Amino acid sequence: MLTTETYQKEFVKYLEQYVSLKEPQNLYEPIWYILKLGGKRLRPVLTLMTCDIFDLDYKKALDAALAIEVFHNFSLVHDDIMDDAPLRRAKETVHEKWNINTGILSGDAMLIMAYQMFENYNDATFRNLAKLFSKTALEVCEGQQYDIDFETRDDVTIPEYLKMIEYKTAVLVAAAMQMGAIVADASEEDQNSIYEFGKNLGIAFQLQDDYLDAFGDPKTFGKQVGGDIIENKKTYLYIKALEFSRQEDKDEILQLFSSTPDDSTPKINRVKHLFVNSGAADATKEEIKAYTIKAFAVLESMPISKDKKQLLHQFGESLITREV
Amino acid sequence: MLTTETYQKEFVKYLEQYVSLKEPQNLYEPIWYILKLGGKRLRPVLTLMTCDIFDLDYKKALDAALAIEVFHNFSLVHDDIMDDAPLRRAKETVHEKWNINTGILSGDAMLIMAYQMFENYNDATFRNLAKLFSKTALEVCEGQQYDIDFETRDDVTIPEYLKMIEYKTAVLVAAAMQMGAIVADASEEDQNSIYEFGKNLGIAFQLQDDYLDAFGDPKTFGKQVGGDIIENKKTYLYIKALEFSRQEDKDEILQLFSSTPDDSTPKINRVKHLFVNSGAADATKEEIKAYTIKAFAVLESMPISKDKKQLLHQFGESLITREV
Repeated sequence: MLTTETYQKEFVKYLEQYVSLKEPQNLYEPIWYILKLGGKRLRPVLTLMTCDIFDLDYKKALDAALAIEVFHNFSLVHDDIMDDAPLRRAKETVHEKWNINTGILSGDAMLIMAYQMFENYNDATFRNLAKLFSKTALEVCEGQQYDIDFETRDDVTIPEYLKMIEYKTAVLVAAAMQMGAIVADASEEDQNSIYEFGKNLGIAFQLQDDYLDAFGDPKTFGKQVGGDIIENKKTYLYIKALEFSRQEDKDEILQLFSSTPDDSTPKINRVKHLFVNSGAADATKEEIKAYTIKAFAVLESMPISKDKKQLLHQFGESLITREV
Repeated sequence: MLTTETYQKEFVKYLEQYVSLKEPQNLYEPIWYILKLGGKRLRPVLTLMTCDIFDLDYKKALDAALAIEVFHNFSLVHDDIMDDAPLRRAKETVHEKWNINTGILSGDAMLIMAYQMFENYNDATFRNLAKLFSKTALEVCEGQQYDIDFETRDDVTIPEYLKMIEYKTAVLVAAAMQMGAIVADASEEDQNSIYEFGKNLGIAFQLQDDYLDAFGDPKTFGKQVGGDIIENKKTYLYIKALEFSRQEDKDEILQLFSSTPDDSTPKINRVKHLFVNSGAADATKEEIKAYTIKAFAVLESMPISKDKKQLLHQFGESLITREV
């Protein structure tokens, strides 16, 4: 087993080999641009790590890891168009640097290229990888649609919200891990367990993201603290705050989340106060803990060595306790 | 062997079974809308017909045929966004009826759903279908990019143009036929032959489309005659006319193709006159004939029965001699 950093480095080396001059340039340049923008490479690292955990050289999982990363970046390119986002990882988004049509078409090509990565595996593995990939990719689209639908609804429930983040974020983390297990030819039971581990961890990860967006330390949090509040995003914190508040506070929250003041600081402070006072902040922390415990319970039940469990445990902890 | 109409009817029946109420509705409704808009169902019919030709019940090829049709409609949805097209088959386009984001996301889901159709085949067939599908789909994206690139170039050569229509249109016709052969477990040689037949026929088909757009009979041609001329599209006719003309006529063509008069009738008439007088119209007809002959020569060389050859020959003829 290697360290996270080594998996990451090996993956980036492989990715850079994959990037090559190809015609038509206007289609492929944006693809190499977004793929080389960086990022934590969290998902492909999980694929490689899981392959190692099921006793096959992680190098055999590099193509599956690349498929996951190419797909993840495809979804960023198309999501950024839909969200009209100017920046991604502090650089221009693809549709800003080129144009919307380029973003659409290069994104489409990336989705296809992700499938092509599986062609380097044998028939049965190819089928298992592609099948899991299709199911997951479609769920990610469904999650994105739910997220869009929620923007114009004010009756979103906690179960609905949890399903949305499960689809939009967690299933890809889960599939990334299961793909490592598929390549390593792990048993179906082990594959399902590692998928469940990844899924629960992914949900905890996204809830943590919601929490940090409001309560993260501005010194260490990568994005602007309060960004979700500024954009009136209905996160777990928001839904819980509405659920827990009496009519008066409820009205204030609804009013705050339909305003976009020039100076957002008072709004952010007031919303955070209401999140804390209503108990929504604590409830979110509790939910993060609950999903983490669920993930670790699945891990505990798996027939793998203690040091491997520890490695995954550590990695999970680092994701959930992160401040960035 | 059945008639074209019967294959078409059987395919539409299968398609309608596939369409079902699914959540989130805002993602799936546009998908069922575009799939049920109609059209000739040319590509899936070719898949079914080819399966029969290689001696397997065409019903086994229904899923592959559906994959091709879903992909084709995915490309229409995304292309219509890029072209800002309000109408498709005389009905509103998806991004017009809903919005651009819906068009992007529903299109993405369709591309994934196309791959899922292959899951009903065994491992080896699944792999062969998905591999051919990915290669073809990526070429279609490349063809679309070349088409976009050509809009702002005035030095497009005939070989470049032919490559563009091969990628954008012909390879999908070719792949539709090869998929029927893959399902029927035809030899690799037969698969390659039917692919070549389809590809050459597809190029002839697209050139015929260019020709009819200018010279079709307004009474029978489905679209507005002269549409390409109005939009200053650089078709085979245009490139050939520039190639064949002396400086004076060349200048006039260039001038005409940079104008967008309110009354397009005089422009259309003048351009058609120049297309005929330069010899570009005849050269296009010659090229259509050349690709058709090439397609039929491949067909002749195939080890299939005479009546099957005749069926494909007839179908090919009907595509090329069509006036609509």
